[in-house]
Amino acid sequence: MSLTRIHNFSVSLDGFASGEPQSAEAPFGHAGQRLHQWMMATQSWDASGTAGVDNAFAQQHDPGIGAEIMGANKFGPPGWPDDQDWKGWWGPNPPFHTPVYVLTHHVRPPIEMEGGTTFHFLEATPAEALETARAAADGQDVRIGGGATVVRDFLAAGLVDHMHLVQVPIVLGRGVRVWDGLEGIDEGFDVEVVSSPSGVTHFTFTRKVPS
Amino acid sequence: MSLTRIHNFSVSLDGFASGEPQSAEAPFGHAGQRLHQWMMATQSWDASGTAGVDNAFAQQHDPGIGAEIMGANKFGPPGWPDDQDWKGWWGPNPPFHTPVYVLTHHVRPPIEMEGGTTFHFLEATPAEALETARAAADGQDVRIGGGATVVRDFLAAGLVDHMHLVQVPIVLGRGVRVWDGLEGIDEGFDVEVVSSPSGVTHFTFTRKVPS
Ligand SMILES: NC(=O)c1ccc[n+]([C@@H]2O[C@H](COP(=O)([O-])OP(=O)(O)OC[C@H]3O[C@@H](n4cnc5c(N)ncnc54)[C@H](OP(=O)(O)O)[C@@H]3O)[C@@H](O)[C@H]2O)c1
Ligand SMILES: NC(=O)c1ccc[n+]([C@@H]2O[C@H](COP(=O)([O-])OP(=O)(O)OC[C@H]3O[C@@H](n4cnc5c(N)ncnc54)[C@H](OP(=O)(O)O)[C@@H]3O)[C@@H](O)[C@H]2O)c1
Repeated sequence: MSLTRIHNFSVSLDGFASGEPQSAEAPFGHAGQRLHQWMMATQSWDASGTAGVDNAFAQQHDPGIGAEIMGANKFGPPGWPDDQDWKGWWGPNPPFHTPVYVLTHHVRPPIEMEGGTTFHFLEATPAEALETARAAADGQDVRIGGGATVVRDFLAAGLVDHMHLVQVPIVLGRGVRVWDGLEGIDEGFDVEVVSSPSGVTHFTFTRKVPS
Repeated sequence: MSLTRIHNFSVSLDGFASGEPQSAEAPFGHAGQRLHQWMMATQSWDASGTAGVDNAFAQQHDPGIGAEIMGANKFGPPGWPDDQDWKGWWGPNPPFHTPVYVLTHHVRPPIEMEGGTTFHFLEATPAEALETARAAADGQDVRIGGGATVVRDFLAAGLVDHMHLVQVPIVLGRGVRVWDGLEGIDEGFDVEVVSSPSGVTHFTFTRKVPS
């Protein structure tokens, strides 16, 4: 069965998955790199990095994934739809290596990159986007890549099977909140929690099998 | 040195320390007992309870404390100032056994209870209240007992030396938020994090010694 998975999704203590304002110079706004330092310190990011629990979680990002769905604000900074040459943050060979569906109200033709990544632009409901991505994933799982808005919308629509969320013990104060409108969402999941010596806490949400 | 401490302060994943609406029947609103189940399952609450990490933290609540400061909404449900007989939720022998300073705009004469607890009612800034409580604590520490509003105000005023915060993996969606207005508050603290097999996560905030 093809699952819908979220990985390495990092939030502050106060529930923000991005700071503000987002810009080309500061993709995460005033959060800087604080939300992802835990990941950049692991072997999955840098060969000389750590090999413990943070790395074990980080490495689950790719295996078994056949397509990603991301939001317009993950794909580029404000204004990217006006730039016909914008091809994402990730250079000529992006780290996805699968079809990637960018949810946006500014659709454009697909962009084929090196290494197996093709960006498709889609105006669709979460359920429709998932159906499209799943067909492309060819039996493999679909990753919801963020940002907060898209994660929230997929959770609200009941479409998420597995979510790895990483809480970083910082108080951002402002940015994009992930939990708004999701009262009681925990009831549909089994939740496992483990803290890391690095200071972050890993939450694994697994959708309860309907009884 | 007399410290200002917070213990067993429980918040949801989305940062609420109480649900809504608060009432005599539901002191925590729609949160019910979900924020404190972890504590009620320990030996410190019930002799047949658990004796692990949750209990170790829960037991730090009392030793070394000479006075507590709490908010008006912890002391009683909406409307308690209109009831001249209201003496708190805790019966004739409340579990504080020290002077307790209730911050309120509805001051009344002190109420002496059994077992060493006396409720004092105070309209004062956090710093003034702390000075008063510290004088009464006779060299011991002062506990900030909550709720969220009072914890937030004492954090914002830079008056907290030690905070034990317990995160419960539920999404309350509404209630009283603790982190609002506290952007960057983590920078003044060393933060240690440990998850418990019960599913909650214990955060220990220790004020950084000024360098
Ligand atoms: N913390 C993490 O782990 C993590 C992970 C990924 C990204 N991020 C960060 O999060 C930020 C982006 O998050 P965000 O919440 O601002 O935005 P986002 O979720 O990336 O994108 C939201 C935008 O996507 C478009 N969109 C969403 N659903 C749509 C639909 N059904 N149909 C058509 N368009 C749709 C809309 O943009 P338009 O109307 O403009 O087209 C919407 O404003 C960035 O800073 C990124 O770096 C963080
Ligand atoms: N999660 C936990 O661990 C925990 C711990 C303790 C309590 N709680 C719960 O939290 C809820 C109460 O929290 P809350 O945030 O609503 O309220 P609170 O912090 O208990 O009390 C806030 C109220 O205290 C009074 N007050 C505060 N500062 C004052 C000052 N400097 N001078 C004068 N009066 C002042 C004001 O009331 P008036 O203007 O009406 O006088 C204010 O509205 C309750 O449901 C309680 O059961 C949770």
